[in-house]
Amino acid sequence: MDTDRDLLPEGLEDRLPASAAAAARVTRAIMDVLDSHGYDRVQPPTIEFEKSMASRMAGVQPRRMFRFVDPASLRMMALRSDMTVQIGRIAATGLGGASRPLRLCYAGQVITIKGDGLDPTRERLQLGAELIGSDAVSAAGEVLAVALEALRAAGATGLSVDFTLPDLVDTLAAKALPLDADKVEAVRRELDAKDAGGLVAAGGEAYLPLLTAIGPFDAAIERLAAIDAGGALASRIAALREIAGRVKSLARLTLDPSERHGFEYQSWFGFTIYAADVSGALGRGGSYTILGADAGAQEPAIGFSLYPDELIDALAAADAPRDTLFLPLGHDAEAAARLRAVGWRTVAAVCADCDPAALGCTHRLENGEAVRV
Amino acid sequence: MDTDRDLLPEGLEDRLPASAAAAARVTRAIMDVLDSHGYDRVQPPTIEFEKSMASRMAGVQPRRMFRFVDPASLRMMALRSDMTVQIGRIAATGLGGASRPLRLCYAGQVITIKGDGLDPTRERLQLGAELIGSDAVSAAGEVLAVALEALRAAGATGLSVDFTLPDLVDTLAAKALPLDADKVEAVRRELDAKDAGGLVAAGGEAYLPLLTAIGPFDAAIERLAAIDAGGALASRIAALREIAGRVKSLARLTLDPSERHGFEYQSWFGFTIYAADVSGALGRGGSYTILGADAGAQEPAIGFSLYPDELIDALAAADAPRDTLFLPLGHDAEAAARLRAVGWRTVAAVCADCDPAALGCTHRLENGEAVRV
Repeated sequence: MDTDRDLLPEGLEDRLPASAAAAARVTRAIMDVLDSHGYDRVQPPTIEFEKSMASRMAGVQPRRMFRFVDPASLRMMALRSDMTVQIGRIAATGLGGASRPLRLCYAGQVITIKGDGLDPTRERLQLGAELIGSDAVSAAGEVLAVALEALRAAGATGLSVDFTLPDLVDTLAAKALPLDADKVEAVRRELDAKDAGGLVAAGGEAYLPLLTAIGPFDAAIERLAAIDAGGALASRIAALREIAGRVKSLARLTLDPSERHGFEYQSWFGFTIYAADVSGALGRGGSYTILGADAGAQEPAIGFSLYPDELIDALAAADAPRDTLFLPLGHDAEAAARLRAVGWRTVAAVCADCDPAALGCTHRLENGEAVRV
Repeated sequence: MDTDRDLLPEGLEDRLPASAAAAARVTRAIMDVLDSHGYDRVQPPTIEFEKSMASRMAGVQPRRMFRFVDPASLRMMALRSDMTVQIGRIAATGLGGASRPLRLCYAGQVITIKGDGLDPTRERLQLGAELIGSDAVSAAGEVLAVALEALRAAGATGLSVDFTLPDLVDTLAAKALPLDADKVEAVRRELDAKDAGGLVAAGGEAYLPLLTAIGPFDAAIERLAAIDAGGALASRIAALREIAGRVKSLARLTLDPSERHGFEYQSWFGFTIYAADVSGALGRGGSYTILGADAGAQEPAIGFSLYPDELIDALAAADAPRDTLFLPLGHDAEAAARLRAVGWRTVAAVCADCDPAALGCTHRLENGEAVRV
């Protein structure tokens, strides 16, 4: 066997029938919910100029894209690793003149040059939505509620949402719990790591109580409110309570106000979504800023991204086999069409000795009726 | 304006809302028809090893893929330019043990490093289906009929199908109209070009009558039958008549038996599909051979590929605007959910002064009812 020729690269897989069907169903369910809430689908290209996407990315993210030369322009192009930067570009350019708030959604494949940590996967399905032009509490509540409704429609169960306040330290360091500018990053890092000793060593002893405001939402938000010196966090706490009130019937809620990893790009509000049968995060979202086309121009936005591949696999494994109708050679084509029109899946014989059972058929067309095989 | 940063590369575009909605609708309609006929969806990765895809391609096609090094294996990878080679690989490997005939379908983006001729487009949507393990007449008729039904469901009109016999010259040159081996390729080329003078110069004078067997199917197939010296083409002619009989109610049919361009990979049967409002081919298909995993192993197959981007744009341009329901701040969430459940699209206010009309809303929620704005 020429194993070498037909090998797939590391971290790349085929979705075979059961899982491809589940992927299509999940995508359809999520996109239908987003559409029903006024989110317009857009479809950016799979590859773009490297610089364009990198300019809208944070940190070392650009290095995770596959890059190659464009023979047309001689500039570097890249395979997209995150569709949200493309949505930001569309909002700033092609839809720069559209009314705000602008609601957009998307679904597509994203690719990275390397897996991350223990997961070698290099291609994923990414779906999401962005509400552009506002990061108001009402917008935040809507975006999270829509994400949860979409996931439930897709078949996800046991949803839980972990709230965070990405700019927590910056907000407190300004006045309430002052920190020298050169200490802010270290304090942020130690809080994210939940390292009490490291936090004190970094000069953030005043921030220690925040490590107690973590856990089930109702209790944790009370502890945060109690800690909130001078009310610097009052509006954020009120906002979180409002959002929580809106979605508490849809998911179990927790709070981790200083969670930072994955939220470097976010502003006042962030959240992570988890579900049963899915290890790790199913999705993530929050408020952030989209760069406009002109230098210095920007606008607020709230959005979320879902990475449902693992959910898809779990749902596929639980799918029941489908009824399928075998159509013998010379069958009544009109009867077959009528049965398809009411939902039957048919498989036609292409030769006289095609075996219905071998083809996975549960029924057979006889005298215009579906008869169990 | 930093035009440079947000520029898209040549031949790559965003689908904005109207056209993204049409693309999703067309994809869904086509895939639903394919599914109803027993075709199982599969989803191969967007990138693979270059050698794997190239080994299943004809001619200079491999050169049209974007290529880059895989840091994991240090081998060359490529962006797929044609999903049919991936389906062939899946049929030979992951589904190598599945019952035949194996019915698979797919939908995805394909990318080329350069546009072709006058069309600079470098990324396209490709959808298609493959019936693997048979190239019998019944299979050919099914595949074409399913393609046409899918296109009609997607909204295509004015469908026409041009039939061809890709191995026509090889079949005739063997015995009926003998040609030296070194003349076969030249005769094939001149016939494809419809160049009578060139055909004679290439030693193919005996093939001149074939140039009259071109045009509306019923008349052309009779001329082909009349030309058919010694009946070398008898079974192919009978097959075409049978297939034509099956699909004549779905499309206008023509015959061009020596059409070659684009069918270098096909065996006995090929077809090109055209539609109203679409310049150039909407799709193409035919019989061919899939290489198995083991050296020398192979199996017959029939399939088609559609490239519906232009159809999508035409349908998007004809779409009517949708009714949209504006939900003021503090609206009755249950009433809104009930209206969405019966098909309403809603847009919620995020601030007190959101203007329904500016947001494209046609109705407004008042007292649990949708009232025209």
